[in-house]
Amino acid sequence: MRYFHNDYNAMCHPAVLKKMQDAEKISMPGYGTDEICRKAAERVRALCNNQSLAVHFLVGGTQANMTVIDGALRAHQGVLSADSGHINVHETGAVEATGHKVLTLPATDGKINAAQVMAYMENHLSDGDKEHTVQPKMVYISQSTEWGTTYNLQELKELSAACKKYGLYLFADGARLGYALTAKDCDVTLEDLARLTDVFYIGLTKCGALFGEAVVISNPALQEDFRYVIKQHGGMLAKGWLLGLQFEGLFENDLYFEITRNANKQADKLRQTLEELGYKLYIPGKTNQVFPILPAALLDSISGEVTFSPMDWVDEHHRAVRFCTSWATTEEDVNFLCQLLMKHTK
Amino acid sequence: MRYFHNDYNAMCHPAVLKKMQDAEKISMPGYGTDEICRKAAERVRALCNNQSLAVHFLVGGTQANMTVIDGALRAHQGVLSADSGHINVHETGAVEATGHKVLTLPATDGKINAAQVMAYMENHLSDGDKEHTVQPKMVYISQSTEWGTTYNLQELKELSAACKKYGLYLFADGARLGYALTAKDCDVTLEDLARLTDVFYIGLTKCGALFGEAVVISNPALQEDFRYVIKQHGGMLAKGWLLGLQFEGLFENDLYFEITRNANKQADKLRQTLEELGYKLYIPGKTNQVFPILPAALLDSISGEVTFSPMDWVDEHHRAVRFCTSWATTEEDVNFLCQLLMKHTK
Amino acid sequence: MRYFHNDYNAMCHPAVLKKMQDAEKISMPGYGTDEICRKAAERVRALCNNQSLAVHFLVGGTQANMTVIDGALRAHQGVLSADSGHINVHETGAVEATGHKVLTLPATDGKINAAQVMAYMENHLSDGDKEHTVQPKMVYISQSTEWGTTYNLQELKELSAACKKYGLYLFADGARLGYALTAKDCDVTLEDLARLTDVFYIGLTKCGALFGEAVVISNPALQEDFRYVIKQHGGMLAKGWLLGLQFEGLFENDLYFEITRNANKQADKLRQTLEELGYKLYIPGKTNQVFPILPAALLDSISGEVTFSPMDWVDEHHRAVRFCTSWATTEEDVNFLCQLLMKHTK
Amino acid sequence: MRYFHNDYNAMCHPAVLKKMQDAEKISMPGYGTDEICRKAAERVRALCNNQSLAVHFLVGGTQANMTVIDGALRAHQGVLSADSGHINVHETGAVEATGHKVLTLPATDGKINAAQVMAYMENHLSDGDKEHTVQPKMVYISQSTEWGTTYNLQELKELSAACKKYGLYLFADGARLGYALTAKDCDVTLEDLARLTDVFYIGLTKCGALFGEAVVISNPALQEDFRYVIKQHGGMLAKGWLLGLQFEGLFENDLYFEITRNANKQADKLRQTLEELGYKLYIPGKTNQVFPILPAALLDSISGEVTFSPMDWVDEHHRAVRFCTSWATTEEDVNFLCQLLMKHTK
Repeated sequence: MRYFHNDYNAMCHPAVLKKMQDAEKISMPGYGTDEICRKAAERVRALCNNQSLAVHFLVGGTQANMTVIDGALRAHQGVLSADSGHINVHETGAVEATGHKVLTLPATDGKINAAQVMAYMENHLSDGDKEHTVQPKMVYISQSTEWGTTYNLQELKELSAACKKYGLYLFADGARLGYALTAKDCDVTLEDLARLTDVFYIGLTKCGALFGEAVVISNPALQEDFRYVIKQHGGMLAKGWLLGLQFEGLFENDLYFEITRNANKQADKLRQTLEELGYKLYIPGKTNQVFPILPAALLDSISGEVTFSPMDWVDEHHRAVRFCTSWATTEEDVNFLCQLLMKHTK
Repeated sequence: MRYFHNDYNAMCHPAVLKKMQDAEKISMPGYGTDEICRKAAERVRALCNNQSLAVHFLVGGTQANMTVIDGALRAHQGVLSADSGHINVHETGAVEATGHKVLTLPATDGKINAAQVMAYMENHLSDGDKEHTVQPKMVYISQSTEWGTTYNLQELKELSAACKKYGLYLFADGARLGYALTAKDCDVTLEDLARLTDVFYIGLTKCGALFGEAVVISNPALQEDFRYVIKQHGGMLAKGWLLGLQFEGLFENDLYFEITRNANKQADKLRQTLEELGYKLYIPGKTNQVFPILPAALLDSISGEVTFSPMDWVDEHHRAVRFCTSWATTEEDVNFLCQLLMKHTK
Repeated sequence: MRYFHNDYNAMCHPAVLKKMQDAEKISMPGYGTDEICRKAAERVRALCNNQSLAVHFLVGGTQANMTVIDGALRAHQGVLSADSGHINVHETGAVEATGHKVLTLPATDGKINAAQVMAYMENHLSDGDKEHTVQPKMVYISQSTEWGTTYNLQELKELSAACKKYGLYLFADGARLGYALTAKDCDVTLEDLARLTDVFYIGLTKCGALFGEAVVISNPALQEDFRYVIKQHGGMLAKGWLLGLQFEGLFENDLYFEITRNANKQADKLRQTLEELGYKLYIPGKTNQVFPILPAALLDSISGEVTFSPMDWVDEHHRAVRFCTSWATTEEDVNFLCQLLMKHTK
Repeated sequence: MRYFHNDYNAMCHPAVLKKMQDAEKISMPGYGTDEICRKAAERVRALCNNQSLAVHFLVGGTQANMTVIDGALRAHQGVLSADSGHINVHETGAVEATGHKVLTLPATDGKINAAQVMAYMENHLSDGDKEHTVQPKMVYISQSTEWGTTYNLQELKELSAACKKYGLYLFADGARLGYALTAKDCDVTLEDLARLTDVFYIGLTKCGALFGEAVVISNPALQEDFRYVIKQHGGMLAKGWLLGLQFEGLFENDLYFEITRNANKQADKLRQTLEELGYKLYIPGKTNQVFPILPAALLDSISGEVTFSPMDWVDEHHRAVRFCTSWATTEEDVNFLCQLLMKHTK
């Protein structure tokens, strides 16, 4: 069996595990106050070319999202999100459980744009009864999105400008940030993200680590007391240095970029084969998630040899599915999948 | 430097890390739905001699507490706890953040008893305006407690009976359960806990793992939908099998009991030395946490060679401190500490 | 100026105020435990022909909605609602502030139907990752709806059956219940509501009282501890008998039905005039809210003489607006408005 | 029967009801945006001699407390309160239901002092793990307290200075403010409260109105968006002018001060009689609540002729009880009670 059902189905890159083995004898203070996390945070600041960033390491994405959002908002405020945003559809209402409404905008290929944000705000501000509705105070985007697409620099600048204009925080969920930063169609850098958002995170779990997300906060208002907020939301790992170690493992020699770039490359190869075979993509994109529309019969035929995630039915006989590549996907894996598709096509 | 400031300052027992290394090549479904977690859950049911238990693996203690408590209570209900309980004093109000009040009972050596619970309930039920106060629906205890003491079987039976009488859930925080189960003064077994509580957890983080807590639910009402509740509280680890692997590593050949028993033994040795030197304990107890009252001058003298946690000042010149042993504490470590104390006494 | 901007812009029906004056000298126990509320609750049970109903009097609609919903749901559960539902759009996220997500279904004329509920549930139950999404546990409808339409008995039966099938609570927001019960196109009675829903309320604020909503609970699970839930949500009025008195004032001699029926009649007259003048309704309906599409120029012309609520723009020159009638609307008021519309048409 | 069980057992002062009758024909915009509330707010600013105050009218005390506190605090922050504070003991955890922990200080006669607040803050700030505990951000006091005592100007100044020093908001619950402002032992004015607190409220419900509390906010940070917060917490009364009308009724010709002063005078008379009869007060105080310790036998004897509230048992045969006076208490009522006590005291 070859595994394409998600990008977190394997252990971690060997360099990450090696970091842990090498640290077997250490003793450290708890809860992320250790030297390893301190150095990892410094490394993030260097990568973002910004010394004023606050950096915190959390275990997972849902935890990071609910912590960042609840930490930023006052009681009556909500967060704007694509209707396909992870916080809206796949976190069991974790944000609402902290008391804040997710205010949805219709997404196009998983993305929202500055015009939508501005229109929403104009509508809100001109509402004579606006206090009867939730006050938008943050915009949440995913980079790359849940549908594998990315925001380019121009789009990000426009979103950032719209947020500044209306006093909104901009928050980028970077669970799959590595794949976005190395995608062919994405010209955004870590430095751009640190400059254009108020807070974002560098996803580790889905990019080669065992677990972990590095939350990067540029806005001083959101930096204040963030450790209290982490602890309150159950996100303060006792042996916090495990997060710093993994970050170190992934960012030595730019490994993070290398492995996500390679995953994108394998995904590109798959996309090319799909195109050659005449299959359409349900959603475009140049990152590690590939969403072809395939015949149900073909899916039945291949499901004993490769794993994938079923998505929407397009018609009675065709379904969109997701194939994910990751650090663990080899060229051989993708060749196997491509040949399988070829074999079952015609 | 020798480390006694807490029981989670070192990596993990080598057997745990080995499990991870051995699993380097696996691919698994996410979120704890894998085979490794399934087997670990079976192992828990076998250890507790109860096939109807639901078992879930979470990352940490605060997360486990807030998830269990919020999952169990309706909006207007609260949880009774020792005033020294972890949920009351050291979780940044995580339980209140889910909307539930922690109702405190004055603790004796970190413990509460059935009589206190019954008196509280009688008082509540006889209050003509009881709906103006929070309805108690759960009792939270820690085994061992934050002060290193343990509930014996008789105490646990009485608490359980009191809870049953008044329709309260009994929840045991087992962050340090291994130390309790192997303490000389504790006759409680896993089977007892599964029978006498509605839910408890087997602490891994503080007992030799990198992280993890195994939540064990016997009450069917609390079993229902628990995975939703985990996900909503940010506690569903993507690579969930990491928790199952660690559990496996710790419970093969009863390693969990062996290493916690040894930690207690090292602590006993320290307690004996303290007694011989004429120092009093601030709180008694037979587990891995030792709370002597020591002269401030002595503490200054030893602080360059061993680590410990400062607690309450007893008078101007004497302070209670905490020394913790763990799986990582060697006989040599404790001998070093004992000799240091001898050297600086008189 | 004649007032049509909402149905709560005037004091109360004289019979209600008289009840208060007559009670000027009473002394009562607080918080709704008095004899007046007890009798009003009995009257509700008689009207619904059901002796097992629990009845509680709350001050307002948003308060009633958040109290009922939070009292009914466990942490991970949400409530299905029309996207146009009051809880979704006009309560500043009060439901989310209690931790529960509002799960929206696209409304048709303000209504949802059983097929939508069943499809949503089938989709949820067949989702392999359903615990990553909010568990639906309640359906919220408004009778009459925010757009002035009503559910007829057949629709209500189907919704009720769908809810029973999937273990969902059915909750009817009756802020404007009087107008629904007396509308020409609505065959639903109080008895039907008590039988087919788990909980609903009889709106008083918008139907002739100063304030108040009578929450009627048939499901025993929702009856339990409801007074705790009211108090916790700030909804327990100290001088609770004020609510009972107003209920009494409105339900003696069927006044509630008489005044809401009359308001509908005045609205019908307005609808007829609009039709004769060639104006279209934005949303149909036979209750006290009328939503014509009118030329912006006409609206400008009449806005000095009558009040109304602006709604959506239909095109650059036409806007939907709302005219409300109420107990306070006289035949003369509506004649004035009709003549005004005639005068400014053509 | 004469009624002394609380200060909200009667309708309202006739001047309040008259305001409503006089307004029988008005039509107003909803939700407190009307002219009557605007003028009442102006009147509050004049009474406090401070033009920058924001004033909002809410229905009741629990609602006001939860709205003010949740509106002011970020997720990880809590509120310091006397352990006897209303928010801690008699609101069914309404504050915790909004996510914030009530941090208790031991009260003396219902009061806390600046030294306690400063000691708590010093302890918090010097805690190396302070982010594991709730961050105190507000001090809640009641004026007069739940035990009928008052803060004098010096005490209030010290509390205010302590709060300023540590960046805490000071919030005074004024449910019984009228009784405090007119008590013989209280030299605090409305102007003092507006200057020394960040937010307080002028209680109407317990001081002669049907219902209502006037929330007065001086701190601009707490003024911002307060109407959103009110709406979200279910506290925005549709016919908001009812609150303004009642305020007007109570503050014309200083009626509010006159009736609360008179209630204190009646309570003083009762206290004098109790003293003459040799009974001790459980708690001292000069406001409308009187807490004598009386023989249980006497209480049995009088309970058919007067109402009162039972409090703590002092010993097997003696109990503290509460007698309340109010605007509705006549000289004749108190004479009756005094004679009754004399008669039953041999």
